Amino acid sequence: MKKTTDEMNRLTVEQFHQADKVRLIVVLDNVRSQHNIGAVFRTADAFRLEGVYLCGICCCPPNDEIHKTALGAELSVDWKYFENTLDAVKALQESGYTVYAIEQAHDSITLDDVVKTIAHKPCAVVLGHEVFGVQQEVVDACNACVEIPQYGTKHSLNVSVTAGIVLYEFANALRQ
Amino acid sequence: MKKTTDEMNRLTVEQFHQADKVRLIVVLDNVRSQHNIGAVFRTADAFRLEGVYLCGICCCPPNDEIHKTALGAELSVDWKYFENTLDAVKALQESGYTVYAIEQAHDSITLDDVVKTIAHKPCAVVLGHEVFGVQQEVVDACNACVEIPQYGTKHSLNVSVTAGIVLYEFANALRQ
Repeated sequence: MKKTTDEMNRLTVEQFHQADKVRLIVVLDNVRSQHNIGAVFRTADAFRLEGVYLCGICCCPPNDEIHKTALGAELSVDWKYFENTLDAVKALQESGYTVYAIEQAHDSITLDDVVKTIAHKPCAVVLGHEVFGVQQEVVDACNACVEIPQYGTKHSLNVSVTAGIVLYEFANALRQ
Repeated sequence: MKKTTDEMNRLTVEQFHQADKVRLIVVLDNVRSQHNIGAVFRTADAFRLEGVYLCGICCCPPNDEIHKTALGAELSVDWKYFENTLDAVKALQESGYTVYAIEQAHDSITLDDVVKTIAHKPCAVVLGHEVFGVQQEVVDACNACVEIPQYGTKHSLNVSVTAGIVLYEFANALRQ
């Protein structure tokens, strides 16, 4: 029998702010679509992540389109804005985070392999622009590049779908 | 260094039709948004799945909105329409598929646990309406209910994000 909303026992926004988080931060490098940004907030809320860093052309809350897709998760999940994505990556590395660019690159590690190596390490993942991906100079600044193996006709997955898969896998590994 | 489009070595639509598929079918039970349907096609293409079953109020290709999100993946991935989702579930079970409803239910299995049990079994997963989820009578007809554990303030993930996580995990397990 399906659970009712009450039976899901979700946190209030206040409880979310107080609760222990998974040590994982999502960095959005010039993501164009407010729908994708909102979906990332909703996923970051579901897996109770530390925060979302919005960089470059990313739109920030409060914003109607983000709110519509995030369903209010932009109020529970902490976020910060950086004009330059490189500054976000450097700040994270200086605070002890290992930063992974999510990109199809020549020296990338598969998602499956990387999550076996991250236990108890604070991590950040960088997702890029819908067409151009993560900027090459940002990829260069990251500690490693992570790829979701793909077997079809299209070059890539949707940004919010990629975020969902990557955040699920990372959060699962970090929660152990 | 990021790969160029050529270096990704993607299949053509013709090659996709000929290639071996992962024995996994996605059933959409009255999914309202053409954007979600398009994103599911794009994910099904990326993981080279057998097909997408569109049921009830689901919009079918050819459709401009689906095309825009699927980026043409609705031409590579096989699909079928069923007026009644129960007919799709029954047809799949009669053909030897184990059918999983993706729902938060009292007797659900976590996604992590279920993928340990599916090796070499043809599988189908049913995703439901954006607000109402999978219909209770469809849940009842499925072999089991699978849940993505969630820890935040919102009741659920976006349909296309849920599909991405579930299809990634199932396809990975079935590809072994």
